Parts: sequence; structure tokens; C-alpha cells
Amino acid sequence: MTARSIQIVEVGPRDGLQNEKVVLDPAVRAELVTRLERAGARRIEAVSFVHPKYVPQMAGAEAVMSALPSAAGHSRIGLVLNGKGYDRALGTSVDEVNIAMSATNGFGLKNQGLDVRGQVSMLSDILAGRRNSEGQPGTPSLSATLSCVWGCPFDGEVSVGQIADLVGEIAAMGVAEIALADTIGAGDPWAVTRKVEAARQAAPDTTLRLHFHDTRNTGLANAHAGIEAGIDVLDASVGGIGGCPFAPGATGNIATEDLVYMLHRAGFETGFDLDALIATARWIGDRIGRPAPSALSRAGGWPG
Amino acid sequence: MTARSIQIVEVGPRDGLQNEKVVLDPAVRAELVTRLERAGARRIEAVSFVHPKYVPQMAGAEAVMSALPSAAGHSRIGLVLNGKGYDRALGTSVDEVNIAMSATNGFGLKNQGLDVRGQVSMLSDILAGRRNSEGQPGTPSLSATLSCVWGCPFDGEVSVGQIADLVGEIAAMGVAEIALADTIGAGDPWAVTRKVEAARQAAPDTTLRLHFHDTRNTGLANAHAGIEAGIDVLDASVGGIGGCPFAPGATGNIATEDLVYMLHRAGFETGFDLDALIATARWIGDRIGRPAPSALSRAGGWPG
Repeated sequence: MTARSIQIVEVGPRDGLQNEKVVLDPAVRAELVTRLERAGARRIEAVSFVHPKYVPQMAGAEAVMSALPSAAGHSRIGLVLNGKGYDRALGTSVDEVNIAMSATNGFGLKNQGLDVRGQVSMLSDILAGRRNSEGQPGTPSLSATLSCVWGCPFDGEVSVGQIADLVGEIAAMGVAEIALADTIGAGDPWAVTRKVEAARQAAPDTTLRLHFHDTRNTGLANAHAGIEAGIDVLDASVGGIGGCPFAPGATGNIATEDLVYMLHRAGFETGFDLDALIATARWIGDRIGRPAPSALSRAGGWPG
Repeated sequence: MTARSIQIVEVGPRDGLQNEKVVLDPAVRAELVTRLERAGARRIEAVSFVHPKYVPQMAGAEAVMSALPSAAGHSRIGLVLNGKGYDRALGTSVDEVNIAMSATNGFGLKNQGLDVRGQVSMLSDILAGRRNSEGQPGTPSLSATLSCVWGCPFDGEVSVGQIADLVGEIAAMGVAEIALADTIGAGDPWAVTRKVEAARQAAPDTTLRLHFHDTRNTGLANAHAGIEAGIDVLDASVGGIGGCPFAPGATGNIATEDLVYMLHRAGFETGFDLDALIATARWIGDRIGRPAPSALSRAGGWPG
């Protein structure tokens, strides 16, 4: 029997660094991308086309991309929050754009100045602009991430129906991959199962991807539930760097090396080299001035 | 529909404190027990009858027990590593004794000076001594914990068959509850499912209990897998205090408040008060001179 393969999208250079106090130069961020690709990353969220006034940690996305010679089999993703960001992305060599959206009005308004309807129409405008270039060489592929799927810091609980409706609508617009994000780490594995199943029913032909934060230590349990529910693509951040602006002192995304350890131990394939990941977690820990919070960078793998 | 209830056995005063550098007085350890019982603990591993030469952190088990007036509905457990420890336990007011055993010769020899056959015969002697008093008032109930079920720091991998055989043998000797322990935090949730299912087949009438360490961040994922496999009793340690002597720098047991958060969020009942647990985690953090490593004591629950 061939081992089941799980694709991990490395988001440390974006979601991780964006939530660190230290602002790193584009050259260092490009080096992080390169080190992660050497450790096995095939898809990597390398940059965010957000205005540097709002997120100074992500300034110089163009410089990061310029420092990365395109490489066959490696996909670099740029996060995009609106049409302006999308246009910036087109001016770079990003292979994919990921459109940030929110399951809730409260978070959408705070994060992007757009409620859910406003985000859907932003997405619609971007898709309309792509109509003639979709699938052409040089046109980045497109996915969307829905934040606050398991809870919103402003609007509170988010229902299964709310998620199913929105996923169905976005899928019907032609988005081939939709990530469901637990932005504040409020989900539990049983709720992951329920929302994944509902989203799949609403969008049976769409790739679903999961994005977990380990704010309350449920990240790997949620990943386990998602994989058991049939998910094959998950986001993770090297070292578990980053944090949660709504829970000061909390950790960030699930750590890539923690996820890789759990998956390899269970016989899944990821394409990552655990030791190289741990080394990269320590390297970025030195850059951000604090040890990476991941368990694997402290305990090491097992056996030996 | 009534919510499913999960029983959490609080092991912080024993497995947590035993792996901390700071040695706390019996009075402080008794206060920890009392605070945890006020936070909702109904079964609590309060003491270990190990020789203080080997584990100075556990010295004065008798003094801890003397400081705890017996309370209806509260069960205090004493860990026992051999016949001598069992006799010491009988001289106190412990409600339960938990017999430490190992799935592997290597760990058994290192931890107790007994290989697996030696442990089984130690257990057999203890059970023989109880024959006339079993179930009598004043006789503590008895359970066994099998360490290294998901890997041994000395003997390496541990097979499903090895666990099934040993669980079957211990159950046949008349032990009503057997805990399966991931002593070094090497397990993954899929392996949890497999070993729980094999153990249940080998001992269908025995209560199975799970004991996870969060050394490699898989603890709550393993708990999720165990609960999905039908387990209703899990060990956890307030604050996630303690560590792993085989992985310096690693964290200890899964944190009670992290497990309680995940379970309450999913609608399970535990009898614990999350806020009181977090307060107790902070209190013990002050006593041991470092912040409790649990996620919940940093991030807080959600919603509010």
C-alpha cells in the first residue's frame, strides 16, 4: 500500500512573521523561503501584498519575490486582501494568489474594511479581471482563505450553515481551492469534522485546505480530525512562530515540524525533512530573537 | 441528548511535580491537591510511594495524605512501584493505588529494577496479599499503569501485539482499570486508535484509561483519537507541569486546562471549572518558579 500523502503549505514567512514583533528585511525573508524549500516545502506563502502601513512586517513583498529565482515544482503564494493587492501581485513572479476573506462581517471589516458581501464582490471583481488570462502562462493560480471559521473575536460563534453557504458560494464562483482557517484557535476537533463535512457537501468539487492556529493547543488535534475527514492539504508555520493578536502571549500557527513529526510517525508522506525543518526553526528563532515555540525544536524527533 | 462525560484523573501533584526541579514541601503539595479538588478534580494522583532517594520531589507521601481529610466523592491515588511501596500505601488514607508497570523490559529495569516478567510477578504478589481484603472498607481500590506503550527510550518501538498480550494478562489477573501511558510522548493519534482497539479486544471488561505526555505536541490529538475510540478516562496534569527526563527542555503531561477546554468546547462534561484550573496552574507556576507551560494559562478560554 502506498503511503497517503499530505501536502503542507508552509506559511511561516507570511502568517508567522506577520505576527512577530521583529521586522525582518526582505533579504532575510527570502532566505527563510529558500531554507524552507530546501527542507521540502513545495508550496509556500512567501509574501503578503498588504499595505506596509498596516503590517510593516510584510513591507517589500516585491523585493522578497525578486530575490527568489523561480524554480520548477515550487509554488510561491502571495496573500491578497483586495484588488489593489491583486494588481501588485500580478507585477511579481508569485505562482499563486491567495485571497483573504472572512466568514464574519466583524473580522472582515476590521481586517480588510469589507463585510462578507463586500469581500464576495471584491473576489468577483478579481475573478472578472482574470477571465481572459485564467490558466495562461504568467497568470498565478488562485485560492481563497476564509478566516474565523471556528469563531470570530468580534462576532463570536460561527455556525456550520454560515460556513457551508459561503463555501458553496465561493466555489460556485470558480475558486478551485478554499482554505478554512481557525484564525483565533477556538476550534475543537469535533467541530472541525462537522464543518469540513458541511463544506465538502456544499462544494464537492473544490479542494478544501485547513489552516489552524495552536492558540489553545488544539491545533494538531484539529489537524488529525481534518485528515480523518479526508483533507489532504494543511497550512503550517515553521517553528510555530507568530501569535494571535487577540490572545496576547499565545503561540501562532501549528508548527510545521510538529505536524510533520505526527504525520511521518503515522506513516504519511509530506516531502519534508524533519531535521532540516528543526534547523530552520532554530535559525528563524535566532532572527526573531526568541526560541521557536514548537515542541519538536525543543524535544527532537523520535526515534532518534 | 445528555452530554457525554469524560473523567479526567489529575496527575499534576505526582507526575507533574516529580519532573520539576523544585522540591515542594508536603504541605504545599497537599494544598495543590485541595485547590485542584476545588477546581473539580474527583480522582487525583496525590502521592508516590517511591523511595525519596530516587525521587526527592515525592518525599513525605504520608505527610501529604495526613494533611488531606478524606472527603466523600474524592478519590486520592497513590503510585506504587513495588510491594514495599504498596505496604506504605496501606498505612495511609489513599483511596486507590496505581501500580506502575512498563510495557518494556528496558524501562521497567531502569524505573523499577524489574523486567516485564518481574513486574507481573510483583503485581501478582500484591494481588495475592489483597485476596481477603479486596473490596473491604479501608482497602484502596487498585489500577495499573503501563508505561512506554507508544515507544520506549531504551527498547525503541513497541508493537500492538506486545500491548494486547500484556493488557490481556493483567486484566485476567483481576485488575479492573489499566492505563496505557505514552511516557515519552512518542505516539501519534493513529497509533493510539490501533493500540486502544487491540487492548479493548484483549480486555473487553476492563476500563481502559489513557495517559499522554505532550512532549511532541501530539497530546491532545492523541486524546481526541482515544476518545473517538471510546475511552472515557484520561490523565492530565494542571498547567502541563513536569517534563520528560528523556527529552530535556520538553513539556510534561497534557495540561488539564487544555484538555478541559477542548472537551468543553466540544460539548463534553468533565466536572472541572476552567477558570479555577487556570488560576491553579498560575498558582503552581509561582510555586515551581516558572510559568505553567499550558496554552490555556497563556491564551485563556474562548469565548471569554
